[in-house]
Amino acid sequence: MSMTTTDAELNALYSDMEARHLMALWRLEGNIMPRQPSPRARPWLWKWHELYAIAERAGSLVPVERGGDRRAIALANPGLAPEPFVTPTLWAAVQWLNGREVAPGHRHTAQAVRWIIDGCGGYSTVEGDKVYLEPGDLVLNPPWCWHDHGSDADERSIWMDGLDIPINNFLDAGFFEPYPQEQQPVTELQDGKYLKYGGGLVRPAWEERKEAYPPVSTYKWSDTERALTNLAKVDASPFDDVALEFTNPHTGGPAMKTMTCWIQMLRPGIKTRAHRQVNSAVYYAHEGQGATIINGIRFEWQKGDFFVVPSWCWHEHHNGSSGERAILFSIQDTPIMTALGKYREEAYAENGGHQPVTGDFVAD
Amino acid sequence: MSMTTTDAELNALYSDMEARHLMALWRLEGNIMPRQPSPRARPWLWKWHELYAIAERAGSLVPVERGGDRRAIALANPGLAPEPFVTPTLWAAVQWLNGREVAPGHRHTAQAVRWIIDGCGGYSTVEGDKVYLEPGDLVLNPPWCWHDHGSDADERSIWMDGLDIPINNFLDAGFFEPYPQEQQPVTELQDGKYLKYGGGLVRPAWEERKEAYPPVSTYKWSDTERALTNLAKVDASPFDDVALEFTNPHTGGPAMKTMTCWIQMLRPGIKTRAHRQVNSAVYYAHEGQGATIINGIRFEWQKGDFFVVPSWCWHEHHNGSSGERAILFSIQDTPIMTALGKYREEAYAENGGHQPVTGDFVAD
Amino acid sequence: MSMTTTDAELNALYSDMEARHLMALWRLEGNIMPRQPSPRARPWLWKWHELYAIAERAGSLVPVERGGDRRAIALANPGLAPEPFVTPTLWAAVQWLNGREVAPGHRHTAQAVRWIIDGCGGYSTVEGDKVYLEPGDLVLNPPWCWHDHGSDADERSIWMDGLDIPINNFLDAGFFEPYPQEQQPVTELQDGKYLKYGGGLVRPAWEERKEAYPPVSTYKWSDTERALTNLAKVDASPFDDVALEFTNPHTGGPAMKTMTCWIQMLRPGIKTRAHRQVNSAVYYAHEGQGATIINGIRFEWQKGDFFVVPSWCWHEHHNGSSGERAILFSIQDTPIMTALGKYREEAYAENGGHQPVTGDFVAD
Amino acid sequence: MSMTTTDAELNALYSDMEARHLMALWRLEGNIMPRQPSPRARPWLWKWHELYAIAERAGSLVPVERGGDRRAIALANPGLAPEPFVTPTLWAAVQWLNGREVAPGHRHTAQAVRWIIDGCGGYSTVEGDKVYLEPGDLVLNPPWCWHDHGSDADERSIWMDGLDIPINNFLDAGFFEPYPQEQQPVTELQDGKYLKYGGGLVRPAWEERKEAYPPVSTYKWSDTERALTNLAKVDASPFDDVALEFTNPHTGGPAMKTMTCWIQMLRPGIKTRAHRQVNSAVYYAHEGQGATIINGIRFEWQKGDFFVVPSWCWHEHHNGSSGERAILFSIQDTPIMTALGKYREEAYAENGGHQPVTGDFVAD
Repeated sequence: MSMTTTDAELNALYSDMEARHLMALWRLEGNIMPRQPSPRARPWLWKWHELYAIAERAGSLVPVERGGDRRAIALANPGLAPEPFVTPTLWAAVQWLNGREVAPGHRHTAQAVRWIIDGCGGYSTVEGDKVYLEPGDLVLNPPWCWHDHGSDADERSIWMDGLDIPINNFLDAGFFEPYPQEQQPVTELQDGKYLKYGGGLVRPAWEERKEAYPPVSTYKWSDTERALTNLAKVDASPFDDVALEFTNPHTGGPAMKTMTCWIQMLRPGIKTRAHRQVNSAVYYAHEGQGATIINGIRFEWQKGDFFVVPSWCWHEHHNGSSGERAILFSIQDTPIMTALGKYREEAYAENGGHQPVTGDFVAD
Repeated sequence: MSMTTTDAELNALYSDMEARHLMALWRLEGNIMPRQPSPRARPWLWKWHELYAIAERAGSLVPVERGGDRRAIALANPGLAPEPFVTPTLWAAVQWLNGREVAPGHRHTAQAVRWIIDGCGGYSTVEGDKVYLEPGDLVLNPPWCWHDHGSDADERSIWMDGLDIPINNFLDAGFFEPYPQEQQPVTELQDGKYLKYGGGLVRPAWEERKEAYPPVSTYKWSDTERALTNLAKVDASPFDDVALEFTNPHTGGPAMKTMTCWIQMLRPGIKTRAHRQVNSAVYYAHEGQGATIINGIRFEWQKGDFFVVPSWCWHEHHNGSSGERAILFSIQDTPIMTALGKYREEAYAENGGHQPVTGDFVAD
Repeated sequence: MSMTTTDAELNALYSDMEARHLMALWRLEGNIMPRQPSPRARPWLWKWHELYAIAERAGSLVPVERGGDRRAIALANPGLAPEPFVTPTLWAAVQWLNGREVAPGHRHTAQAVRWIIDGCGGYSTVEGDKVYLEPGDLVLNPPWCWHDHGSDADERSIWMDGLDIPINNFLDAGFFEPYPQEQQPVTELQDGKYLKYGGGLVRPAWEERKEAYPPVSTYKWSDTERALTNLAKVDASPFDDVALEFTNPHTGGPAMKTMTCWIQMLRPGIKTRAHRQVNSAVYYAHEGQGATIINGIRFEWQKGDFFVVPSWCWHEHHNGSSGERAILFSIQDTPIMTALGKYREEAYAENGGHQPVTGDFVAD
Repeated sequence: MSMTTTDAELNALYSDMEARHLMALWRLEGNIMPRQPSPRARPWLWKWHELYAIAERAGSLVPVERGGDRRAIALANPGLAPEPFVTPTLWAAVQWLNGREVAPGHRHTAQAVRWIIDGCGGYSTVEGDKVYLEPGDLVLNPPWCWHDHGSDADERSIWMDGLDIPINNFLDAGFFEPYPQEQQPVTELQDGKYLKYGGGLVRPAWEERKEAYPPVSTYKWSDTERALTNLAKVDASPFDDVALEFTNPHTGGPAMKTMTCWIQMLRPGIKTRAHRQVNSAVYYAHEGQGATIINGIRFEWQKGDFFVVPSWCWHEHHNGSSGERAILFSIQDTPIMTALGKYREEAYAENGGHQPVTGDFVAD
């Protein structure tokens, strides 16, 4: 290295680099090679009463028709603005379908799940399989499968949509196609795929195990709740209490390649220990109430609320109630991390595993 | 090649080969490279009333104690005599345990399953997990797991044992060890592994999927029957009717590495089409009655009967009843065939898939 | 839906949504669910003589020391500005190390490969394994492995760095740690991992196949060139001519979980057919000259040039020379796409598979 | 249990069981559930000069033609008599093909490898791929592939055949079919599959990794020897010295599903430590001389000799020479054991890992 280097020479170098679309690593490294993740996404919480009121207004003001296709209201993480995404990889939205309404058919390469919040008579038809959407059901929509929604009753239906739109777009992998008609024909018996593939510890013996995505369409709440209750009798995780991952019965793996779905029961009085992970997750409070401490901030939630835990944030869950269970449904991008060699986790070591609480979440 | 070859020279050659433990392929080939399998094992059927009477007599005459460890009565395929095996790879037996009796603890590398036939109060403890044996339950015993059996009631228990003893011995892979005491301590909650791992479409979220064998101990009849009933509503195999394979929920694969377990419902009036496979199977008639045509011979069976289908034998199942379902449980060595690249199957093409029946099975 | 909806009501709704960090899908869909990918990354080309001149100036002006650690000059795709990334998922840079210089030790979760361009006496030490960097060698740097670089000669070394920094950061999965000293100790014999694991069709028999990343450190140019020459005698791809993927000998899969490396020989006179894929790739012209048509634009390249093909862009390669082979090295993010269920490809169907050329690339 | 049990009652029971093809476990258990394997196969050794003389005589006395198809002389383990098998699962034979001779085409489900011992001008054509058989080459013959052998020179060819005939037959999985003509047409360039797939650390980039069996036909001695020499510089196994397993480059796994192939160099003066495994192996001494101690008996071998190590026998290898390497090729049935959950191994713990030698092998 020359001892006569002058700022002018360096400036000339950097200017010439810029002109040629070149960048010096040594001027960037702190930013692009951080000591540890510092996610732009922020821990956040959306209150159900606000979400519901907004969705209801949209239900009366906005039609569902070609051009939009869906009356979905996305949770937009303030740290990711102006992107309408809840985490860098995940999209989460509340969808409102009025009674007797139809959301027209289409397909896309984004991978999707639906967690049913409320309503009766709503249905999804996915590749000819029509399933009714009942509260607590998890309904899958693997990539590039035709799907439309509708309602055979007067009541509105509400569900949570979880999609991998952000990572799908980031990877320049997004394709979308509208169905030529408003709705596809129903070609399977009602609940056909659930009846065929939902047996759990058994599978149709004559079929090959070859599915990239679960062959079952719906995970019924009655099955899920029974499994939670059974698990609660014998074991729990110190970090997540009574936690189950929905699986692909053909592989034992997660429901989607970019997204896994969890159901957790926090038993009365439980305070889990804190840990952090290289993944991001969106939680929906399906039952009860409690609080989640994220990086020292207390997020209180009640039935219907949504909250998000970005990557590498310490988090622990509390069910403050002495008598009522709380149930959290979540979507998590963990399968991306494990597939790409990125997953890490760390337990919070001090103070019995509990973070000091430094404040309460306030929306800004 | 010499033109003067004489028989004497050849005989001298073969004699010298024999003395050196050498064999000429060209004198063997028809036998060791057959055009297609010609199994020594024979299709066979054992009647329940005979099995039961024998087992009951053994129950009163033969103690269960060190030296024997188990009061198991093996189905010995006449084609494999003097080996006490039901197929080249599989052992099947009826085990009788008197009320209040104990079958002492041991472990072995043979892989084992138990299908519960009758009784109440009998139990198996496998690696500290005590499960009660109820009719229609399938209980697993992965290799090298300590296990003992016992009864907390007065009634006798009867079950079918399915093990891979023949292939285990053929591979010189058999190890056995008695437990130092008569019984091992019970270390898990009753039904603990079923409650934890039997959820079906979900799994404890905090545990790695790494099990070579299913984490669940018991497949309960109530779950199995519900899955059969559900599947019957939507689909069936032309060769096996309403057929389910028991799976390892961590992988979607079979229960054991050498053995898979099936449960089949033959609906009233069903006659399946014939096919043949490179595998061997032992069937137990859990409910109803019917007939299986094996290589043209009719094997009539009723509840409690056992029958065996050797490799590459045409077979089809008939439920002659107009109103009653029939239920067949079976163990099959198919996982060996697929793991080693040996599996084949062929559908019977003529006569609508049905073999001409040339006779009825008669035991000799 | 009300018939009296007014713009005012809608505007109030959207304003209330915004205040609550909610977004309406129906106002976004064209953007977030495009009919097909429209990558921000642009096809681009960097000329070697410009790169070399810049790197040489940096070599004389900029020290390699703590704070920067590496004298790497990144190819910054103009479509992704201000990010210094070559594609959404990949980082590519030219690194210049003066003779006798040391680039200090560190480790990171980003996955890295090095393609050696020129020089003699340069080396990398990765987890105690010191390998000399010779032109045409591919050197691996799996995630979280300590590595430092140095030179035992007077000559400068130049190589291409390929890393997954962009996706690593996007996933909030980036960790970085400097080595406590300038360099780590060398603990293995020179070329130890190559000698042990580089056998190709054989592997050390006593070791388990369990490596997530290739056990071999270096793919030597002499081996690679021989394989290219052999393959050229018997087969080629219509889209990529004589193309080889570097593999993990323990699995047959790609070198990294987020990145695969290819070496391609375009034989004299070859014009490949066009296709497009959901992936992105950065090419380095290791030998010869030619042109690549990307979405109808002709990118002429010579030895030393770099160019990039973003996702879903039609591309075909031409070796215009009548007598000289051309060699392209590339890094591609295909393993991400296949792991996450995103990969697609399409052959260009018209005009014998060749795109109409509408212009020549001009840097702006 | 009755206190009045008499031998007469028991005898009557056992007689009735026998008549019904039933067997009492408690009368068998010592035999069918042994404490540890006690293989019927015996450690054995065949001397090359005897094998060669026998094969040469067969070459002059016995034609190769339809009916026999192959002039193969099987190593018949005396412990398995009258079966002509070298271990329970493996067939090993020496095959002699006269110059200008043809061994006609056929295919079978048995999985086969050939290790070339001597000769020049011999070839195998496997599914249209004709490869010349050169000493030290390993040639694969996956199941159900058409193959014929021939000679384009005057010299005889000699090779070792390794097949899984015994397990194939045991599983009733054997199919065989003669080719309609004497020889199949050659459809690939000479060495085509080696040139295409033999690159080692690279693979044709446009092909899917989907092969159940290696895509490469031949593992050339020059490649193998180089890998051995390289490995010897850096590492070795205490039990097997410089040992390489031939791999399927598409998976990193063994060459066949039922058989793996090893090449081992015992460096001058090396005495490996003893261990035992649940597997069986047949060794061919390709170079040098030495001794293998099997269960305390010393088996001295020289170039050309074959010997067998049955399951669960202690074994260690000695190269007594002070200056010459010894090379052992072997086929081992380990993939069966690992696929079926049967593999175990144990190191000999006493005396520095070396067994006391109690005698020398003498053929009986």
